[in-house]
Amino acid sequence: MEPILNKQPKFIGIAGATGYTGEELLRILKRHPYLSVEFVTSENEAGTALHDYYPDLQGYAGYRFIALEETVNFKVDLVFLCLPHGQSAQWARPFIQQNAKIVDLGADYRFDTPEEYKKWYDLDHPEPDLLSESVYGLPEWNREVIKTARIVGNPGCYPTSVLLGLLPLLKEKLITGNSVVVDSKSGVSGAGKSPSKTTHYVQVNENLTAYKAGRAHRHVGEMEQEIAKYSDFSLKVVFIPHLVPLTRGLYSTVTFQIHKDVTAQQMRDVLHQAYDAEPFVHVMDTILPGIKMATSSNHCFLAADVVEETRTGIVFSAIDNLGKGAAWQAVQNMNLMLGFPEETGLNA
Amino acid sequence: MEPILNKQPKFIGIAGATGYTGEELLRILKRHPYLSVEFVTSENEAGTALHDYYPDLQGYAGYRFIALEETVNFKVDLVFLCLPHGQSAQWARPFIQQNAKIVDLGADYRFDTPEEYKKWYDLDHPEPDLLSESVYGLPEWNREVIKTARIVGNPGCYPTSVLLGLLPLLKEKLITGNSVVVDSKSGVSGAGKSPSKTTHYVQVNENLTAYKAGRAHRHVGEMEQEIAKYSDFSLKVVFIPHLVPLTRGLYSTVTFQIHKDVTAQQMRDVLHQAYDAEPFVHVMDTILPGIKMATSSNHCFLAADVVEETRTGIVFSAIDNLGKGAAWQAVQNMNLMLGFPEETGLNA
Amino acid sequence: MEPILNKQPKFIGIAGATGYTGEELLRILKRHPYLSVEFVTSENEAGTALHDYYPDLQGYAGYRFIALEETVNFKVDLVFLCLPHGQSAQWARPFIQQNAKIVDLGADYRFDTPEEYKKWYDLDHPEPDLLSESVYGLPEWNREVIKTARIVGNPGCYPTSVLLGLLPLLKEKLITGNSVVVDSKSGVSGAGKSPSKTTHYVQVNENLTAYKAGRAHRHVGEMEQEIAKYSDFSLKVVFIPHLVPLTRGLYSTVTFQIHKDVTAQQMRDVLHQAYDAEPFVHVMDTILPGIKMATSSNHCFLAADVVEETRTGIVFSAIDNLGKGAAWQAVQNMNLMLGFPEETGLNA
Amino acid sequence: MEPILNKQPKFIGIAGATGYTGEELLRILKRHPYLSVEFVTSENEAGTALHDYYPDLQGYAGYRFIALEETVNFKVDLVFLCLPHGQSAQWARPFIQQNAKIVDLGADYRFDTPEEYKKWYDLDHPEPDLLSESVYGLPEWNREVIKTARIVGNPGCYPTSVLLGLLPLLKEKLITGNSVVVDSKSGVSGAGKSPSKTTHYVQVNENLTAYKAGRAHRHVGEMEQEIAKYSDFSLKVVFIPHLVPLTRGLYSTVTFQIHKDVTAQQMRDVLHQAYDAEPFVHVMDTILPGIKMATSSNHCFLAADVVEETRTGIVFSAIDNLGKGAAWQAVQNMNLMLGFPEETGLNA
Repeated sequence: MEPILNKQPKFIGIAGATGYTGEELLRILKRHPYLSVEFVTSENEAGTALHDYYPDLQGYAGYRFIALEETVNFKVDLVFLCLPHGQSAQWARPFIQQNAKIVDLGADYRFDTPEEYKKWYDLDHPEPDLLSESVYGLPEWNREVIKTARIVGNPGCYPTSVLLGLLPLLKEKLITGNSVVVDSKSGVSGAGKSPSKTTHYVQVNENLTAYKAGRAHRHVGEMEQEIAKYSDFSLKVVFIPHLVPLTRGLYSTVTFQIHKDVTAQQMRDVLHQAYDAEPFVHVMDTILPGIKMATSSNHCFLAADVVEETRTGIVFSAIDNLGKGAAWQAVQNMNLMLGFPEETGLNA
Repeated sequence: MEPILNKQPKFIGIAGATGYTGEELLRILKRHPYLSVEFVTSENEAGTALHDYYPDLQGYAGYRFIALEETVNFKVDLVFLCLPHGQSAQWARPFIQQNAKIVDLGADYRFDTPEEYKKWYDLDHPEPDLLSESVYGLPEWNREVIKTARIVGNPGCYPTSVLLGLLPLLKEKLITGNSVVVDSKSGVSGAGKSPSKTTHYVQVNENLTAYKAGRAHRHVGEMEQEIAKYSDFSLKVVFIPHLVPLTRGLYSTVTFQIHKDVTAQQMRDVLHQAYDAEPFVHVMDTILPGIKMATSSNHCFLAADVVEETRTGIVFSAIDNLGKGAAWQAVQNMNLMLGFPEETGLNA
Repeated sequence: MEPILNKQPKFIGIAGATGYTGEELLRILKRHPYLSVEFVTSENEAGTALHDYYPDLQGYAGYRFIALEETVNFKVDLVFLCLPHGQSAQWARPFIQQNAKIVDLGADYRFDTPEEYKKWYDLDHPEPDLLSESVYGLPEWNREVIKTARIVGNPGCYPTSVLLGLLPLLKEKLITGNSVVVDSKSGVSGAGKSPSKTTHYVQVNENLTAYKAGRAHRHVGEMEQEIAKYSDFSLKVVFIPHLVPLTRGLYSTVTFQIHKDVTAQQMRDVLHQAYDAEPFVHVMDTILPGIKMATSSNHCFLAADVVEETRTGIVFSAIDNLGKGAAWQAVQNMNLMLGFPEETGLNA
Repeated sequence: MEPILNKQPKFIGIAGATGYTGEELLRILKRHPYLSVEFVTSENEAGTALHDYYPDLQGYAGYRFIALEETVNFKVDLVFLCLPHGQSAQWARPFIQQNAKIVDLGADYRFDTPEEYKKWYDLDHPEPDLLSESVYGLPEWNREVIKTARIVGNPGCYPTSVLLGLLPLLKEKLITGNSVVVDSKSGVSGAGKSPSKTTHYVQVNENLTAYKAGRAHRHVGEMEQEIAKYSDFSLKVVFIPHLVPLTRGLYSTVTFQIHKDVTAQQMRDVLHQAYDAEPFVHVMDTILPGIKMATSSNHCFLAADVVEETRTGIVFSAIDNLGKGAAWQAVQNMNLMLGFPEETGLNA
């Protein structure tokens, strides 16, 4: 039974609400007891009734999409930015100036430096000052700084799944070698809503393919930045994402070299120690995670194993790419930033 | 924003919680602010930790399945029965005697008479007295009697989808002829959790087949019983269910003869009049319903059309078979029976 | 064991080979022992190596797409037209003038009159003379005229499934009333290859929706034209197509009024009589057809039933929309037109 | 156009034809021009008409399943064994004694020694002499010995996908380190036809999970046996299979350490050199393989890449687990053993 608090409602805006992450935010924010959604933007659909665009999204009667520039008329406590990279960076400024906090679901506020951002996104960051104060929004590792941040860069879906599994093992120095191999499998909602040859049902169904393998995917940069904070040696990510025929869900199978005598039990103990007090990260001992466990939730399921003959460590990680990998984690960050109990509205 | 009431919690039990409807109940009851789940039964899994059976169902730490006979030790306000037909009928009695109310998700308390029950389920009803006081739990049509009922028979998934579309048209006397043809398409969760040749992934995927067509499916009886209450002539149901490759969701396409000069607009007006004040039934004017609109929710989406050349009326109805077709509607009934606002815990 | 004939190869062209029907033709023509594919056209991909466009289509090394106007340089015995409607009509002429026969997989040569064509496709038919000599390519009903035709209009996928079930019953005068209701379910390849919101994986998966219900779909005209040839009264088609989450396959559930005393057995007998000697149409007595039975084949599976209380007849029909509903039936027609045994290359 | 030879038909038996590989064999053998299927066995279905069990398998009118012991009455040239491991080993003997050749689609004749067999299957091999003469049926690597073998052990689906990618690179000494990591993704038909919790549609759909990760899957033994023949150092396989929601298809993503200065181009050149003359193995340079490319065929699609920063080599391999991974490769082996052109009946 959820505690019934006497909270003042907070006012929220969503910038860019016609994509999958915006839709998911709209859906789950209706379950949050202390919020009022004040505006919902879309450049293409400005003026359209929200109910005409999302006929199944109940509870938004009377809402219309507005254009970004119209948001100046609203006073909000926090804005979720679901904009293309480059645009989020720019729109953070006007909201910050109105004392709104920001959770950016894109990539613009995930990096520590404009140099690293430019390296992976090939853009000069338009707001390096804001970038320098922004916080990487992985609550299990950055909870305290998120609470007081004005801007949180919500982690990418792939990095969320991988970092939750690797960081405890790195911190406890169980990993060695020069690389980790990340073999990830993502549902199609991760590829975005724009119709394309790649996302046509007939192309995806009964199919599976790797893409952007090696160092080509931009999430490599984000993963290596965070990994570097917990390891005292250079560890490169070999990243091989795959598109699999399911709507939502993400599975990462991560392999790496472990130090001599590290056991599976030891790896599991380290993960348990890191997460047993966490509401959204779960370490499994006897079965392996499955994507379905995490569907439509903020949960991440982890397991670990060791192949002794080759001193290979394996971590298995399952999340919902739109859940812990995007909108639900964004709400978790919002709860921290606005002072709500961290699990509010995230029951699933 | 959900109203924050100062409600006393109510105590709930779930009898039969290892099937899909029991699992769905467990999931959504965690979002309900005024409940405490007291017991969860399974004859096969009695003693098992709930968390071992459902590793992904968070929030049930410490719960164990118990056997039905152990429930005598618990004092609850309401029990959800998710038992095979025949068993629900029997287990209602002991709970009623302890002053618990009952929502039966099976078929045992859906019929008005033991004769009709026997005709379709080939069983002598073991509790004809309780049957006679039980109420058919379609809230949009029986709201007031549900509020005071001790036993509610939660409607079948197919009948829910069909009756919501037909009853307003029958009541307003738009329909004629001797039959309605119900062509329904159901996801595989409707076929239950027991592994079988029929539910094997390889059999279902990239397949679609009709089954129990005509008058063979038991839901025909339930549909005709309710239809008869709103029509002054005999109207038989020709029912053709199909199994389609999706996990959850149910679509009914219903055709029938309409009176001369009945127009599509007239049909839509009648549906709007019936449901515009309802939180969970939505009439669409310009697009047709789709199953995905209703997924993981208590919503039903309806549309209507007319083929003038042949005086054929068409009703389209989409629900989630585990949502409005089972567990979510059961919670809607519970809200009415326990005096909660009808939408509590059903935001989606 | 296929008979080993000493056949001369025939020369074939495919006009419009980048869609699903063209691809399927390319695939199955490789299994045909007496053919040589001479040209493959695409206006968009002219010049592209076929192997670059279809990396998995083995056996076409050295082929390049050419533009339609380049086909004048080739001497072929038969051309498959897989062009948008309107274009097929025009391109038939130059091929006919070179003494090539035509199988048109589009709609341009399915109708008997330019008036009917215009009614459903809203175009003045550019070749009314050729239209008048063209033959409707349903081999089980028009075999003899197909053999000598210069132009065959390959039936639409929905009409193929429906007509194979209805025509025997109409011919034997079992059906009465003023309408048949056709509830069809089609895989997504039937919606074509162009990426769109409607065919995006996330939109289709775990979804199902009706579309163009009533008399809005163009296949209604084609069905009614053929139905009229076998019934001596006016019978309108109420057509309700649905898009279901599978790549290929089509299921039609057809309901209609039957004459008094018509039994299910009688309906089955009539179907058996019509098709027991046919290699590709199969009447099932004890189980209902399923889409998977027909996948990647030229087969159609039929069953029939009767609801006596309401005198409703039901026909169930399963085909592959790209098989008997398009490319495979086109090859069946080609076999007849070129004098090959009808089943050649169609084993599946 | 397939060459039209004047071949004598050969006589074939299928032992164990109710599973997925037996069904696939039945299907594709109908397309083979020089064969006559003499018997089809099933212990459970002995006496059943094949057409009742497989209503959609045309061309087997008159066939009935027989029990294995009844096969003594038939004189055949080759028998496909699709029996549980242990049983194949035993049944090879009586067929060999009648001068039939054997293609075993199970694991009993894949190993070189009874010791290795026992290590992975925990059984004393009942026919060590036959085992020692049996040949590992990977035609691209063992073509000549297959031609004259009496017994061919058809490779497992996972090993087929992996070995085709690795063996050329091992032979050319591009690989170093102590291990290869094989991350494989398999469709559900690979899990067999027995209904179980694991293969229930609702469990598989919208899900993905790893299983038997590390060294637990029996295919590890088969892979390491063959790898050892082409490497002069000990190379262990870390094998992580995943079940993905598709019916058929298998994808292996293989990572390993490469020698200094080995380039992606070098890896591709080595693969091209190995396979450019092969009809069924295709090396892709500019795009990555996808499972759909290989569906219902004997084709394997390969690609290779290198991450220079970490000296990691990656091989991508896509097959159909029932195609090149089972029944189609078995027919390829049969063609070699019976003296037919290797591609006969395998056009796709």
